[in-house]
Amino acid sequence: MHPPLPKFLRLVALAAALTSAGLAAKERNAVVIQADFGGAVMPGVVFSVDKDIPIFTVQPLIELYNIDAAARSLAYTAPVWPAGTIFISVVDPGVGTKRKSVVLKTKNGQFFVSPDNGTLSQVAKEFGIEAVREIDEQINRRPGTEWSHTFHGRDVYAYTAGRLAAGVISYEHVGPLLEAKVVTLEYPKPVVKDGTATGMIDQSRGHLGNTTCLIDRQTFETLGLKEGELVVVTIRQAGKKVWEETVPYARTFGDVPVGKNLMFINSSGFVSMAVNQGNFADKYSIDSGREWTLAVRRK
Amino acid sequence: MHPPLPKFLRLVALAAALTSAGLAAKERNAVVIQADFGGAVMPGVVFSVDKDIPIFTVQPLIELYNIDAAARSLAYTAPVWPAGTIFISVVDPGVGTKRKSVVLKTKNGQFFVSPDNGTLSQVAKEFGIEAVREIDEQINRRPGTEWSHTFHGRDVYAYTAGRLAAGVISYEHVGPLLEAKVVTLEYPKPVVKDGTATGMIDQSRGHLGNTTCLIDRQTFETLGLKEGELVVVTIRQAGKKVWEETVPYARTFGDVPVGKNLMFINSSGFVSMAVNQGNFADKYSIDSGREWTLAVRRK
Amino acid sequence: MHPPLPKFLRLVALAAALTSAGLAAKERNAVVIQADFGGAVMPGVVFSVDKDIPIFTVQPLIELYNIDAAARSLAYTAPVWPAGTIFISVVDPGVGTKRKSVVLKTKNGQFFVSPDNGTLSQVAKEFGIEAVREIDEQINRRPGTEWSHTFHGRDVYAYTAGRLAAGVISYEHVGPLLEAKVVTLEYPKPVVKDGTATGMIDQSRGHLGNTTCLIDRQTFETLGLKEGELVVVTIRQAGKKVWEETVPYARTFGDVPVGKNLMFINSSGFVSMAVNQGNFADKYSIDSGREWTLAVRRK
Repeated sequence: MHPPLPKFLRLVALAAALTSAGLAAKERNAVVIQADFGGAVMPGVVFSVDKDIPIFTVQPLIELYNIDAAARSLAYTAPVWPAGTIFISVVDPGVGTKRKSVVLKTKNGQFFVSPDNGTLSQVAKEFGIEAVREIDEQINRRPGTEWSHTFHGRDVYAYTAGRLAAGVISYEHVGPLLEAKVVTLEYPKPVVKDGTATGMIDQSRGHLGNTTCLIDRQTFETLGLKEGELVVVTIRQAGKKVWEETVPYARTFGDVPVGKNLMFINSSGFVSMAVNQGNFADKYSIDSGREWTLAVRRK
Repeated sequence: MHPPLPKFLRLVALAAALTSAGLAAKERNAVVIQADFGGAVMPGVVFSVDKDIPIFTVQPLIELYNIDAAARSLAYTAPVWPAGTIFISVVDPGVGTKRKSVVLKTKNGQFFVSPDNGTLSQVAKEFGIEAVREIDEQINRRPGTEWSHTFHGRDVYAYTAGRLAAGVISYEHVGPLLEAKVVTLEYPKPVVKDGTATGMIDQSRGHLGNTTCLIDRQTFETLGLKEGELVVVTIRQAGKKVWEETVPYARTFGDVPVGKNLMFINSSGFVSMAVNQGNFADKYSIDSGREWTLAVRRK
Repeated sequence: MHPPLPKFLRLVALAAALTSAGLAAKERNAVVIQADFGGAVMPGVVFSVDKDIPIFTVQPLIELYNIDAAARSLAYTAPVWPAGTIFISVVDPGVGTKRKSVVLKTKNGQFFVSPDNGTLSQVAKEFGIEAVREIDEQINRRPGTEWSHTFHGRDVYAYTAGRLAAGVISYEHVGPLLEAKVVTLEYPKPVVKDGTATGMIDQSRGHLGNTTCLIDRQTFETLGLKEGELVVVTIRQAGKKVWEETVPYARTFGDVPVGKNLMFINSSGFVSMAVNQGNFADKYSIDSGREWTLAVRRK
């Protein structure tokens, strides 16, 4: 049996416990904000709720009104953040109309505050839906903003996210539970047939100028190719061939000389085309969207 | 009469008080930075003063040398931040000349560190001037930067803001009290006559492409219009009519079909024109400035 | 001789010590991130290591693949940050190739996490090299990212920087010590001859449109010129004179009328050309690089 601690040590333990309790009480979840407009208004709303919330913004901005890009950015960003993180996404061409304002809780314990306009498609699919609640604006709207119908990001989303992050409200207080689904942007699935994988081109003409398609790493691996092998890549628009070349399946850009083309698996895990230190999309005028496909097969 | 607390509880109370005192001592006001140039230099200066200051920057940048935009951005941003927040604005085409470097304290308890070149017009008007002090560079300049005359943002403004935020100096130590006024950008006031409200167009061709004028919500309401009614909007350049159309006074973009025009009250509370999911300013070549006006009346 | 403190005061002192120990234990070094791509992924990796790390990003982005600009930005940014700050720079056209991933410790006590591709040239020269360690990816790679070869910024650099900042690893655990040198971008030194200082133009066509050369303040001062004197500035491309004018050596832009040219010492301490409130580089089609030089002499 342990003898009782001397009184001095009991006091040390007590003070230490209180100290860490004090610190623990300050623990806040992070708020990560993405939008197709800038400024320091949404961070200010969150900060005003609680000064200890860690606040981050996605820079540069999401392209104006581009819901596909917003969905992709969320799915690209969220996996590195811890459970409990609250993401705000405001790409909202239908602001003030009947699209619902929701907070999605995913099975990995993250929260997504957004119009339910397709932005949530990809995180819902990849992380799984735990629950969807509609924001009750009677409760979760900044006081004094009832007259404004065009800045839900400030008046509703940032305010709700801040209060969730600080624990002022719990998830249950966001508003009524909806059916566990979100508005979904449906993309064609990749197809593998006769040793050729084909997928829709979902990104091109972006910052780096790489062209990316919806053939994921797992699907690509069914072709049994090894890094360094040559592949034939065919790009079609509305079914018509617009580009075809034999290129190496490379590990990274620098595996080919500067200016040369390569196929690689990008950092999100999808089949992509690039020019080493160049801009593939601009060089070959490759756009993205439902009528654009990329096919890859062993040479 | 209360019996004395047992000693154990007195110690608990003592430790708790010390803990919260320690945490309270860490309280810092936020610093919010806007400028027409980028980088991580001004945040670094603030952080070097005190690691616990919450620091935020306005992104994207203010347009180069655009003092009107800087003034507007401050007035748009500040209302959501708490009292005590310190804003730095560095849009300073006259850097190093005789324009004064000041810290404006507004009646809502916020501080604005800026060249007194018009940037402070709008916050001074909207929040009221509590006091204006000129920054005494003998005291409030980063040591070792006396040779530099072109980066007051780094050497004087960020340093002063950081020291204010951390309580290293109080407002009185910024420098001498000036007359309680700032250099003001004067704009024509909105006019209501014969059921028509007219105001200068102050913004157009911006990120969203909406066209905004200086008819504020209160002035507009004197027309007695209801959401959903039709209005006639006339845009003139130098008195000459360049655009006129009957459009709905809408609550929000989505109240009209995609591609259609609408008049609405924007999130700052001013009469604005938009194309739902389009760019009004570009579509009709509408610019802003003193020679551009917008008039609105009931159909 | 002091009497012993009463027990009450001993306990106060104890609790205070514990409290401040608790707070001190939360002390974290800042992480400052620059890159030629955006998003909120690297901040998320750092935040996931430890929620108390102060995280900052350089905005706008570094120009794509521009290692010179990355080197300049680091040298421009770092001096205002405290010792212990950890900088991440990811401008890495050779990502995934044999260039080394290193952490440079400079003599001023700062850390630079970057590919060793020239980015570190200028901070190494200006602050001095304390040590260079190669990142051991067996230890310092985010678990589960072994398949990715194109996003070292996320998988290795941000992860290593976060762990350094939080004290999870010490500098010794980054990886093996390399020779105390970095890959260096060599620029021609400024030359002073017959009263004329000449230096390579290293920046032009940037955000402000000023043209800057590698004549540093100390070299320039050997000409014995005083602010306000007239100087003859000659700009050559490949040895051929493309621009020459007599302009004032001004303290700042506003010392000359709007639209007029001036020579000044910029905020980094280098001889520069500007048009007051204009764009010098565009106006006179002045570019930068090894074949461009600027010469200045007393009129």
